[in-house]
Amino acid sequence: MKPVVWIPVLIALAVLLAGFGYVGWSKSGPGAGLYSRLWQPDTVFSYWNPKPFYKSVQTVEGLFKGEECIECHESLTPGIVKDWRASKHAKQEKPVYCSSCHGSDHQSLHMPTPDICANCHKAQHDQFLDERRYGFPSHALAMERALDSKHFADKPKAEVASCLQCHSVATKCDSCHTRHRFDAAEARRPEACITCHSGPPHPDDEAYFASAHGKKYLTEGDKWDWSKALVKGNYPAPTCAYCHMRNGKHQVADKAIWKFGLKEINQHKGENVVKRQSWIAVCMDCHKQTESEKWLRNLDLERKRAWQKLYKAEDVLEALRGDGHLSPAAGKRPHYPIEWIDKLWPRARIGLLEGQASAFYNVSKIERDYFEMWYFANLRAYKGAAHGAPKLVDEGHKRMREALKDIKAEAQILDRLGKKEVGMGKPFDPKPLWTTGEYTSKNAEAN
Amino acid sequence: MKPVVWIPVLIALAVLLAGFGYVGWSKSGPGAGLYSRLWQPDTVFSYWNPKPFYKSVQTVEGLFKGEECIECHESLTPGIVKDWRASKHAKQEKPVYCSSCHGSDHQSLHMPTPDICANCHKAQHDQFLDERRYGFPSHALAMERALDSKHFADKPKAEVASCLQCHSVATKCDSCHTRHRFDAAEARRPEACITCHSGPPHPDDEAYFASAHGKKYLTEGDKWDWSKALVKGNYPAPTCAYCHMRNGKHQVADKAIWKFGLKEINQHKGENVVKRQSWIAVCMDCHKQTESEKWLRNLDLERKRAWQKLYKAEDVLEALRGDGHLSPAAGKRPHYPIEWIDKLWPRARIGLLEGQASAFYNVSKIERDYFEMWYFANLRAYKGAAHGAPKLVDEGHKRMREALKDIKAEAQILDRLGKKEVGMGKPFDPKPLWTTGEYTSKNAEAN
Amino acid sequence: MKPVVWIPVLIALAVLLAGFGYVGWSKSGPGAGLYSRLWQPDTVFSYWNPKPFYKSVQTVEGLFKGEECIECHESLTPGIVKDWRASKHAKQEKPVYCSSCHGSDHQSLHMPTPDICANCHKAQHDQFLDERRYGFPSHALAMERALDSKHFADKPKAEVASCLQCHSVATKCDSCHTRHRFDAAEARRPEACITCHSGPPHPDDEAYFASAHGKKYLTEGDKWDWSKALVKGNYPAPTCAYCHMRNGKHQVADKAIWKFGLKEINQHKGENVVKRQSWIAVCMDCHKQTESEKWLRNLDLERKRAWQKLYKAEDVLEALRGDGHLSPAAGKRPHYPIEWIDKLWPRARIGLLEGQASAFYNVSKIERDYFEMWYFANLRAYKGAAHGAPKLVDEGHKRMREALKDIKAEAQILDRLGKKEVGMGKPFDPKPLWTTGEYTSKNAEAN
Repeated sequence: MKPVVWIPVLIALAVLLAGFGYVGWSKSGPGAGLYSRLWQPDTVFSYWNPKPFYKSVQTVEGLFKGEECIECHESLTPGIVKDWRASKHAKQEKPVYCSSCHGSDHQSLHMPTPDICANCHKAQHDQFLDERRYGFPSHALAMERALDSKHFADKPKAEVASCLQCHSVATKCDSCHTRHRFDAAEARRPEACITCHSGPPHPDDEAYFASAHGKKYLTEGDKWDWSKALVKGNYPAPTCAYCHMRNGKHQVADKAIWKFGLKEINQHKGENVVKRQSWIAVCMDCHKQTESEKWLRNLDLERKRAWQKLYKAEDVLEALRGDGHLSPAAGKRPHYPIEWIDKLWPRARIGLLEGQASAFYNVSKIERDYFEMWYFANLRAYKGAAHGAPKLVDEGHKRMREALKDIKAEAQILDRLGKKEVGMGKPFDPKPLWTTGEYTSKNAEAN
Repeated sequence: MKPVVWIPVLIALAVLLAGFGYVGWSKSGPGAGLYSRLWQPDTVFSYWNPKPFYKSVQTVEGLFKGEECIECHESLTPGIVKDWRASKHAKQEKPVYCSSCHGSDHQSLHMPTPDICANCHKAQHDQFLDERRYGFPSHALAMERALDSKHFADKPKAEVASCLQCHSVATKCDSCHTRHRFDAAEARRPEACITCHSGPPHPDDEAYFASAHGKKYLTEGDKWDWSKALVKGNYPAPTCAYCHMRNGKHQVADKAIWKFGLKEINQHKGENVVKRQSWIAVCMDCHKQTESEKWLRNLDLERKRAWQKLYKAEDVLEALRGDGHLSPAAGKRPHYPIEWIDKLWPRARIGLLEGQASAFYNVSKIERDYFEMWYFANLRAYKGAAHGAPKLVDEGHKRMREALKDIKAEAQILDRLGKKEVGMGKPFDPKPLWTTGEYTSKNAEAN
Repeated sequence: MKPVVWIPVLIALAVLLAGFGYVGWSKSGPGAGLYSRLWQPDTVFSYWNPKPFYKSVQTVEGLFKGEECIECHESLTPGIVKDWRASKHAKQEKPVYCSSCHGSDHQSLHMPTPDICANCHKAQHDQFLDERRYGFPSHALAMERALDSKHFADKPKAEVASCLQCHSVATKCDSCHTRHRFDAAEARRPEACITCHSGPPHPDDEAYFASAHGKKYLTEGDKWDWSKALVKGNYPAPTCAYCHMRNGKHQVADKAIWKFGLKEINQHKGENVVKRQSWIAVCMDCHKQTESEKWLRNLDLERKRAWQKLYKAEDVLEALRGDGHLSPAAGKRPHYPIEWIDKLWPRARIGLLEGQASAFYNVSKIERDYFEMWYFANLRAYKGAAHGAPKLVDEGHKRMREALKDIKAEAQILDRLGKKEVGMGKPFDPKPLWTTGEYTSKNAEAN
């Protein structure tokens, strides 16, 4: 074989190996994920992401059997022992004791991560992992995608600790099945979901409870028999889990036609047509097919309308950038510490493709305003339309209209000021005010 | 008779007839209401306004008896059959079957509109219709007033579908009595009302639950006997229906002293004095007369205070318009497609008389900000004061103070910029930015 | 003794006496508190602050025994009689009748103030009063601190009536123990607290119910046995009262480590170290010590991060003031009527030390925006972090980021406009627009 053939092959191999090596090295820092070398976890992280961070206390020594754990903890922490006694775990012929999940050596106890629960609950765990096939957002990918995102690594850890609290759904089963009763009846109720699915940008809580379904649950849900499976005919009105985890399937991604609502999605694509049929099958547990289709079409129309407004706002921002009146322009404000490429090639953040995920910080007011419109107002309307909650649809569109009006008025003032200043030969330099952002290289150093 | 007499009479008659003819023609379009020729309904409209829009499915043929409906739907849609079995309808000697309300011919089924329910529930329906005497807002007029309003016809239908969802209270009884149990006990609970009475501009939900009355309901309401009538002594705390539909009367307009809160109302007018006495009679089911009067007076004072702030804001806007610095001024932005008169005679939207209902869109930021202050902040404070919820009063007045501050600061910047530009002989033309609004003639064409 | 000694002593005595005299005179006006001569109470004030303002009705004459009260009120106000019959008061061998608390003479009835309840419930009342030692905020000082604050006296009474509704916790026990059942079981539930602890600036309601603790309460709280004392092992999840009034202690101030969240607090001070240990002892009813410490440390870090943002915003405002571009500057807007010293020595309101409590009104937009950031966004994040509600932490920090961005953008526009105007020799005078504020001397006259 001639060198012309194997030299490039060898180079490619070397680059590949170097890449793997670099990623491996990068992941082995004090934090976790792709940028683990750039940050340190706060102590509470051990709670949300126990595998890399949890350390057992060293003050109690010894190996303990299940009955012994109970004996001490009955008086130390009576609440959790009571909960456990009320659980199915306790009522087995061979009870599932504390030690079954936490280990026996009190100096190397561990938190039960999903793979530990999978020892007994394999089917559910497999379904859960199956979500990964559908990409993010998904429960199964929630932790790693959070840790691997640039703005997570960039920000002070005190600020992103609350992110992990919900993203820990990927690393702990007790996000939904609260310990130590782990009662399926509890996990079937909406409250199990809405500790996280609540507030901007995913007001599922507000949307469900504002719907006729949710009102029915609020009025009489306490009297329903929650020990029943989530199948047709068992419940007078649906809950989060009824529709999204029908028949108890621990995988919620395979019917998501509009996904998170972050971009316009072509509903005519084959996979979306199939997903839609799955949705309609759920609705048809209670409603007619024709009515179910109407409601989904209503959602489509709402989405189309929302995107008309969003594109309009993007146009205004792009025109402003084109005229050089965006202030501070991309080059005049601090770049994202982790994105060194931004230092060389500063860019505005307008629309999904220009890196909206990082529009959270270190951008101009008008870019941020668009981000708010897109990420919060838009998603409020979406969740409302998807869950049959007119209140949220109205609020979302009202906020989008307001945002568009604000963006136009702001563009107008920036334009008027900018023209005058250029006309007077004294272009304004916003840099001094923005030199030190909230999230600067200095933050990164102390991260 | 001389021609001088009958010629004008004939002309008047001809004009009247032409008027009637025009309205009739205008109402016979594909949409509904006064502007029915200007828009098409989305499919989901058949749900909210069944009379003009509902079409029965054609896939099932045949005439069916009540028992036969049940037989099939028991497995097709078991939930609603269960609900029906639990209803009074099912428990009559001669049950009220599906076919009693929907018809027997499966290819021409209809949705039960209020007039159908009135076949058995005449008294309630009569009370309901009686609301029309008191003008809008009212439940009985909710649908037609929505359809007849210009901004409804003007807007893309995807955006106003959510309006109809609540305004359908006029066209379907199951807004409050959820199908197919139609249980009065359920309709007596606040959840029956707040699917709609919630969120801006009518946060009755938030107000009631933030009050001491609402907290009592939340704590112990599940244990009250909801099968009891809404009369004195039956309930430990009031609910929406207890006060507004006392003794079960299906008419809520005859005690409304501040109505929707949209304008300042003279409380000394005879009719309002009478209404006030009716209110106090309700309070006196539990409270002393003197205390009841104090609370209502407290509401009056809150209202007076709110209007002081609103008038102040109107003054600022009017001064700005007077100085020619409102930007974009009325003539520089798209007019409302349906209001052709706006094209000839453009006007700003400041205060109730200048057409606030349409300040939802195609106005300047500062007009919109006033609209928000009036329609959302003001009504939040009002609902809080009316329901004994200090949280909402505080929030409402806080938002009004903020809005007034924003409006002043905005006016100041527009004024400063405007003066400078005029001084430099280069008045600013905002028109290019605003030429195409969110709701333009183009939208109207595709509506 | 020489005159040089006793003359200054006499003068000091005279000044002291004059001071006492002045305060006494000042407190004896038609209102209440330090500024009682500057305002009149609205009638509803008699409800919230009965001692100075309540007047018995004169229409019923006579002395009545307890049984006689019941006899009449059974039909007049059956609800409250039912409640009383269900109370412990009614079930004593010697019942505590209406007259025991309200008096017997129907023309001089009184509302039962806490000192009256203390006749039987001395221990609770003593604990309650003990809160005063810890300073404000506290329940026991709630009324007098409200009445003695300048902005309360300054504002129209219709606007501050809602303040008193909650601050009446100091003057009436039925804020928490709703009349006339006064059931401890009811007062143990969160609903007893959140009529007041709700909404900005203290969204304890939202925070608790958004936490895993709150969700557990929502799901199954109705089935817990609320007659049990608030001690270890009695409840599956904590409520407001469980943690803040553990063992039923009517004093909530002795564990408050971050207090109201209004300033950065040194957690290393001795008293705070002791308080922290008390907190952790509460958590340890259910959780491990190490985990409890992590959560509190997480709160500390969140607080530190919040203050970084707040200080940054203060810097921007101070720079703007330094450059003379704050508009309207302190001297160009109405001063607070009651603070005559402001007329002589006008000052901007930036940060806690410059009088933030009065930044509610008569300030520039940018000062107000900082106030919002500090008082509402900041406290939302704080309450979220303190109660384990990630939703509120996210929302709070999101709003702080937005506010900081807005403040910078606003500062930039004021700076650009200001520079231009000075350059052109025509400094802008904002005074005309602001001369009459919302709260001016005119308001004070009609107060």
